Amino acid sequence: MTGFESVAAFEAALAALPGPDRSAQAEAAERQGQLTKPPGSLGRLEDLAVFVAGWQGLGAPRIAHGRVAVFAGNHGIVAHGVSAFPAAVTAEMVRNFRNGGAAINALAAAAGLELVVVPLDLDRPTADFTRAPAMSADECLAALNAGAAVVRDDVDLLVLGEMGIGNSTAAAALCARSFGGAAADWVGPGTGVDAAGVARKVAVVEAALACHADAPTTAFETLRRVGGREIAAIAGAVVAARLAGVVVVLDGFICSAALAPIAAAHPTITDHCIAGHCSAEPGHARLLARLGLTPLLTLGMRLGEASGAAVAAGVIRAALAAHAEMATFAEAGVSGA
Amino acid sequence: MTGFESVAAFEAALAALPGPDRSAQAEAAERQGQLTKPPGSLGRLEDLAVFVAGWQGLGAPRIAHGRVAVFAGNHGIVAHGVSAFPAAVTAEMVRNFRNGGAAINALAAAAGLELVVVPLDLDRPTADFTRAPAMSADECLAALNAGAAVVRDDVDLLVLGEMGIGNSTAAAALCARSFGGAAADWVGPGTGVDAAGVARKVAVVEAALACHADAPTTAFETLRRVGGREIAAIAGAVVAARLAGVVVVLDGFICSAALAPIAAAHPTITDHCIAGHCSAEPGHARLLARLGLTPLLTLGMRLGEASGAAVAAGVIRAALAAHAEMATFAEAGVSGA
Repeated sequence: MTGFESVAAFEAALAALPGPDRSAQAEAAERQGQLTKPPGSLGRLEDLAVFVAGWQGLGAPRIAHGRVAVFAGNHGIVAHGVSAFPAAVTAEMVRNFRNGGAAINALAAAAGLELVVVPLDLDRPTADFTRAPAMSADECLAALNAGAAVVRDDVDLLVLGEMGIGNSTAAAALCARSFGGAAADWVGPGTGVDAAGVARKVAVVEAALACHADAPTTAFETLRRVGGREIAAIAGAVVAARLAGVVVVLDGFICSAALAPIAAAHPTITDHCIAGHCSAEPGHARLLARLGLTPLLTLGMRLGEASGAAVAAGVIRAALAAHAEMATFAEAGVSGA
Repeated sequence: MTGFESVAAFEAALAALPGPDRSAQAEAAERQGQLTKPPGSLGRLEDLAVFVAGWQGLGAPRIAHGRVAVFAGNHGIVAHGVSAFPAAVTAEMVRNFRNGGAAINALAAAAGLELVVVPLDLDRPTADFTRAPAMSADECLAALNAGAAVVRDDVDLLVLGEMGIGNSTAAAALCARSFGGAAADWVGPGTGVDAAGVARKVAVVEAALACHADAPTTAFETLRRVGGREIAAIAGAVVAARLAGVVVVLDGFICSAALAPIAAAHPTITDHCIAGHCSAEPGHARLLARLGLTPLLTLGMRLGEASGAAVAAGVIRAALAAHAEMATFAEAGVSGA
């Protein structure tokens, strides 16, 4: 994976997103119809197998090397009191990831996934985007490429997540700028702020929208103006995965919001993505609807760090196991309907 | 596990169902509050860890030996044309289970669960319950005990499922007799009958309700009159698991319907049960509401054979892994809110 040489290269990739392998999809769908079960009776497990088949270009899709990538970034807007936790927690949690003590360590291991953690300039928070773009163009392009770099050749499922104190406010700003609606439609309690904290988040999003109202609305410009490094990295990873035919499992509100600026102009960007779960963060259900995604799980999770997506990856693994290992009616000598 | 010596012993067990270990629950809940995440942010994964802790009586619950038990039985009512598949498929699928070719083989393996298959007198279908009780008292008691027998001492999670051509009609009859409502409220397409097939199923349930209208409505009598061997076995396994402090993961409509006759008089029977998923069979959502259970997954599955429950067991395993393996704020040196 070479990444994106320039902003123009990134935008060009968005304008020419490849589709799935229809022949591999058809092969997988035909096999599903022959397996020893009433047709359709495995529900979404059947859909998942066909979906992954299409993107992997294999009638018998597999997860031999599933990778979780968690990107971390810090945000200038934390100065406005938008999080229940201090900004130092971003770096503390990165250390916790590396020491194996976070939820994602346990959940990635339970799903048989490798975990890579990518901190992005944690000692250099983005600019306060109520007054200026969060990142320069070079900074945003570097973050996109840090994301693209996790799509190694051998990766056959990519599970994405983030850690960044303050980033649910950036996610709300991305959604509001990409899809419209009031700031309050996209703001929620995040890690657990009270009503006053929610009001501060709304004010920050409103100020951000006003500050950047006259700026270009391309995906790149929106990501760099009101996003964050970890969010841009997720966007870069999703696009790189698309070019490589790798299915992406999205986590919660912030992870999904990385796609909002792209989806506004290129709605097929989510075609290779699975919404791992629907977060308890209120804006996520609205965002998934705008992205055209139906979540696999709804477990009231709202942690981030790819936790919900990793649990969903276990379900995807189960779907592929059934697809690969079941006998057909003919093989098993079972009578049809 | 000794099973039930008599019908009276079974009914006595129902009248004295033990509760969970509140102290182990409290210990687990306290630990959840100290782990490196905002409180509550793992949603149902946190609830699952505390739930299993209570029934296992361990602050650090575990799945060292999770077992899937699939019970199979044949039904006299298939003569009324209530299934899309011929009755021979029950035995053919048992052979498929034993040869490793069914969905549950793949899904149990994916979730790290042992699979046991228990066929119950497949060459001796139950009686046509539109005219007579499906089973004699001895037959029903034997089925209950066949179920109880799967609760071996070393089993620490029990995942239940069934196979039996015609048994979605028995399940509908159990629900209607236990909870009331019209036969049509509980009847659905099952493995895939058409509208005429659904009408035949409704007629069979209505005839069953009329035939047994004046009979006693104890759990045992309802199970033996309009149930089936595999369904009674599930009921026996659930009660035996309760006595042994083993959490049960229920599969779909038929598996859950095994509890309807018990829950009508003893609603706490489901206290140690997790509804693994909500089936696409229409009566299942209604039944889960009556049983007081919120399904873990909703994936449009409707296969039976414990398939949905096995996928759910993977989620439960993830929940316990997070509970056991995560660091506390103090251990990780992460700042609190």
